[in-house]
Amino acid sequence: MTTPPLPIYAPDSLRGWVLDVFRALGLEDADAAIVADGLIEADLRGVESHGVSRIPIYAERLRRNLIKARPDIRIAHPAPVAAHVDGDHGIGFVVARRAMDEAVRLAEESGIGLVGVTNSNHFGMAALYLEQAIDAGFLAFAFTNSSPALPVWGGRTAFLGTAPFAAGAPGGEQGPFIVDMAMSVIARGKIRLAALYGEPLPEGVALDADGQPTRDAQKGYEGVYLPFGGHKGAALAMLIDILSGVLTGAGYAGGVRNQSRDFTGPTEVGHFFLAIRADLFMPMEEYRARMDTLIERARSCPTADGFEEILIPGEPEQRRREERLRTGIPISASILEDLEREAETLGVAMPDPLPAAAGPTR
Amino acid sequence: MTTPPLPIYAPDSLRGWVLDVFRALGLEDADAAIVADGLIEADLRGVESHGVSRIPIYAERLRRNLIKARPDIRIAHPAPVAAHVDGDHGIGFVVARRAMDEAVRLAEESGIGLVGVTNSNHFGMAALYLEQAIDAGFLAFAFTNSSPALPVWGGRTAFLGTAPFAAGAPGGEQGPFIVDMAMSVIARGKIRLAALYGEPLPEGVALDADGQPTRDAQKGYEGVYLPFGGHKGAALAMLIDILSGVLTGAGYAGGVRNQSRDFTGPTEVGHFFLAIRADLFMPMEEYRARMDTLIERARSCPTADGFEEILIPGEPEQRRREERLRTGIPISASILEDLEREAETLGVAMPDPLPAAAGPTR
Repeated sequence: MTTPPLPIYAPDSLRGWVLDVFRALGLEDADAAIVADGLIEADLRGVESHGVSRIPIYAERLRRNLIKARPDIRIAHPAPVAAHVDGDHGIGFVVARRAMDEAVRLAEESGIGLVGVTNSNHFGMAALYLEQAIDAGFLAFAFTNSSPALPVWGGRTAFLGTAPFAAGAPGGEQGPFIVDMAMSVIARGKIRLAALYGEPLPEGVALDADGQPTRDAQKGYEGVYLPFGGHKGAALAMLIDILSGVLTGAGYAGGVRNQSRDFTGPTEVGHFFLAIRADLFMPMEEYRARMDTLIERARSCPTADGFEEILIPGEPEQRRREERLRTGIPISASILEDLEREAETLGVAMPDPLPAAAGPTR
Repeated sequence: MTTPPLPIYAPDSLRGWVLDVFRALGLEDADAAIVADGLIEADLRGVESHGVSRIPIYAERLRRNLIKARPDIRIAHPAPVAAHVDGDHGIGFVVARRAMDEAVRLAEESGIGLVGVTNSNHFGMAALYLEQAIDAGFLAFAFTNSSPALPVWGGRTAFLGTAPFAAGAPGGEQGPFIVDMAMSVIARGKIRLAALYGEPLPEGVALDADGQPTRDAQKGYEGVYLPFGGHKGAALAMLIDILSGVLTGAGYAGGVRNQSRDFTGPTEVGHFFLAIRADLFMPMEEYRARMDTLIERARSCPTADGFEEILIPGEPEQRRREERLRTGIPISASILEDLEREAETLGVAMPDPLPAAAGPTR
């Protein structure tokens, strides 16, 4: 028995459909475009967990008005180079993009800009906001908190989020440096997909609801995920909640709602963004040349057993992106089923996949 | 056969001796006091690897003028809220303290302050600078780069440093949050001590000079250390080199000299400090109450098997500190031998240990 190849979609036509979906859900055109770009960008990079697979849950929360389609986002300046963004429960992509824009604007004037965000929602792939700053010539940090999924160190119940540690720096000819990594050994979105596909988890990744180790993805998804690097990852997850939640005034300490399961109110997600001018201490060309030197030297290190080459953080996703821009975005059957249901509900037909070829199977 | 208890020193008398040592090495009184405070603070917290055990190597570099006893530290402001500190090859403790002071001053005015440092040296325990900011009411990041010790992900030779990810936040009645953790599974200083004591390393901690896994601490100390969390820790180590080295203009990309083995020039260490006002988005009392809530909720999580209580990052060191303020600082035989040699060279006699009691043995 052979598995048929997955349907593959041209990025542009898929993006057009996503745009129409979010227009139909009530977003203004410009905001729908920001969401479409963010989701397609994640799928292009192979971060399927943060791509179009999330549309049904965003749609559900928009229909319930737990995410506002047309928020009144407000920006205040409690200090000269710090801004507070009240997202008014808008979709995270739009609120976060606006916030990072403000961080970059502040950094342009003063060298560094800090933005704290309240009343936001899931903002998709954190690398989106790093790239936004990097493209403008700034180093950046982009943090968000999220609903409980990880135990504190020594605990066995969900308390901290798995939301990523995300930081980036512009580069030269060798490209930028982008780190966007979940606090769990495996990203929550990936555990969700494994549950969806009925695939087992590796060991040491999750505990079930009773605090026992499990390799059953569904049980893990309903239980707690373990932090990477033991107490070190757990400490970083707590730092991210302090910056995104305690400091900003958003939900925190387990108070952020799970967007997939809790419909009793808005999620109360908070974000924290920093942008830093890359040419603070030297001309931009010199900074870029130094980044190139770092990356070239790193790449020329002799490889360990089992490695054919050295990849820089962000490079695997960049390669996947280039490939998928050529070959298209594959969508697995269970996700497609959800998307088609959504298309029908909204009366916005999905595009046809590309003509069948020897695509990947799942 | 029983091992005799380690000699234990009263913190104050040990601190007085360290002060005299650095005066004898040519530092001004105020600077010698900063170094003495930093070393004693590390020993009080049980971070023996960053305490008085380092005196001989600092002394050696001071005698060779690779660390300047009386540097001309200069501060410039390339942007309104960013400062550049040229440490003039002074001892890291003094340069870093001055730099974090400036970060706090900038943050007080503008909400956030960034300081990049060049021409510095090993600054001891990163938590010192976090505490400096926390005591003033600021959140902080304190990064430094260091000589090659970790491979890039997929490499087998030393390229990145093991210098810590260090961040902290003021708290309320429940105390602050302090994370100061080496990028290696085990801190380099601890591997150095294991080599000194002839103790074996755990598995998965180091490779020998040929790139093979080893549990021999001396071989590991001469080889490479593995990052915590695999590629995630390696990515953080590269980020720290970008912020501390590439951005600031200090040594980077493997260019920082090993202070213990390379006497061909100054180390060219760079640092990166951020201070952030804790009351940016709400009154200070409210921020402190939220931190207390976070910590209280974290502490009240049910414990996993093998844990009796939940400890917050920074809390184990804080407990050790309180204990050692009462009982004193134990010093192991091999370190004591080095210190006594230094005392003799400089003509500054060590204090007597406390009267023998049932102290810890090593």
